[in-house]
Amino acid sequence: MNYPKTIKDLIDCFKKLPGIGEKTAERLALSTLDMDDEILEVFSSSLKNIKTKIKRCNVCNNLSEDELCEICKSSNRNKHTICVVEEPKNIIIFEKVGTYNGLYHVLDGLISPLDGINPQDINIDSLLKRVKEEDITEVILALKPSIEGETTSLYISKILEKENIKITKIAHGIPIGVDMEYIDTLTLEMALEDRTSIS
Amino acid sequence: MNYPKTIKDLIDCFKKLPGIGEKTAERLALSTLDMDDEILEVFSSSLKNIKTKIKRCNVCNNLSEDELCEICKSSNRNKHTICVVEEPKNIIIFEKVGTYNGLYHVLDGLISPLDGINPQDINIDSLLKRVKEEDITEVILALKPSIEGETTSLYISKILEKENIKITKIAHGIPIGVDMEYIDTLTLEMALEDRTSIS
Repeated sequence: MNYPKTIKDLIDCFKKLPGIGEKTAERLALSTLDMDDEILEVFSSSLKNIKTKIKRCNVCNNLSEDELCEICKSSNRNKHTICVVEEPKNIIIFEKVGTYNGLYHVLDGLISPLDGINPQDINIDSLLKRVKEEDITEVILALKPSIEGETTSLYISKILEKENIKITKIAHGIPIGVDMEYIDTLTLEMALEDRTSIS
Repeated sequence: MNYPKTIKDLIDCFKKLPGIGEKTAERLALSTLDMDDEILEVFSSSLKNIKTKIKRCNVCNNLSEDELCEICKSSNRNKHTICVVEEPKNIIIFEKVGTYNGLYHVLDGLISPLDGINPQDINIDSLLKRVKEEDITEVILALKPSIEGETTSLYISKILEKENIKITKIAHGIPIGVDMEYIDTLTLEMALEDRTSIS
């Protein structure tokens, strides 16, 4: 005796999600029995449609239901600045901050020769094309401060060197609200290096 | 700018599952974009059908796709013993052990006057009816060793007192592979009380 087929199938599907093990999958699958019908309907149809409905923006590679994403379509954005990010979800965080009003470019990965990810495997060519064709004055590199992130930032800044634009990198340093004693030495080193003048 | 609607809907659905917060829901929803089409199809249809396909067994209240669950339908089970459990998923654990070959009865809860759950709110009447009508010789109480579990066990043993059957309770004691120093005093007290003779 095991669970009825529909439940077993659902457990197997939940197990395919990242970080969900056998026990959690079982708990999640059983909990759907108590969900409202309308929520299950939305849940089911969203899963069914996710891959056909969600495309990538033709220009910036952001997630989108249309050829162009909301940001590229908008007439209220500053069309002269591109913020380069690793993944679509990074855009959401910048948008939550709300102070950046320019465009984005999603690389979909970082250069990592050890993992076999070379510059041509991520969306760097299309970035160069945009810089050449659009009226861009600044490219902001907003990649994570790992070896891969730094390598990718360095590579992009090299290939954009000849274009007549400003290339910047977001500041790495002490996060707000964290006690100094918990800061690792590499972060402190970066914070020192990127120090800004206050007087 | 936020996520496209289909992704937003999916994040909201994942957030309705127990123990899934905003960040995890976002991660899970985005990960479905990388899932195989066939898995998404099964995932979607299982969710759609779960509430219509999964019923409760008319006899023992176990989860089932038919009027009778696999266990009640089986001709290979010992029809004279009923093991009383709190939830359908408890049955799966007993079946994994594999040594019990009798029937089950799912209470769907435990008596808990403080939470307003009285004997008539859980499936005790149907248990009594089964004991009277079927050829039952033993009822095994397999409820968790909490106040609610003990109260329910006590209640059931009282109402079955007049029937001419054996009523037993699974042993509470030291679990296998656990160091004695980590055992709480209540478990140790129960283990002492339930001690068995070895010579």
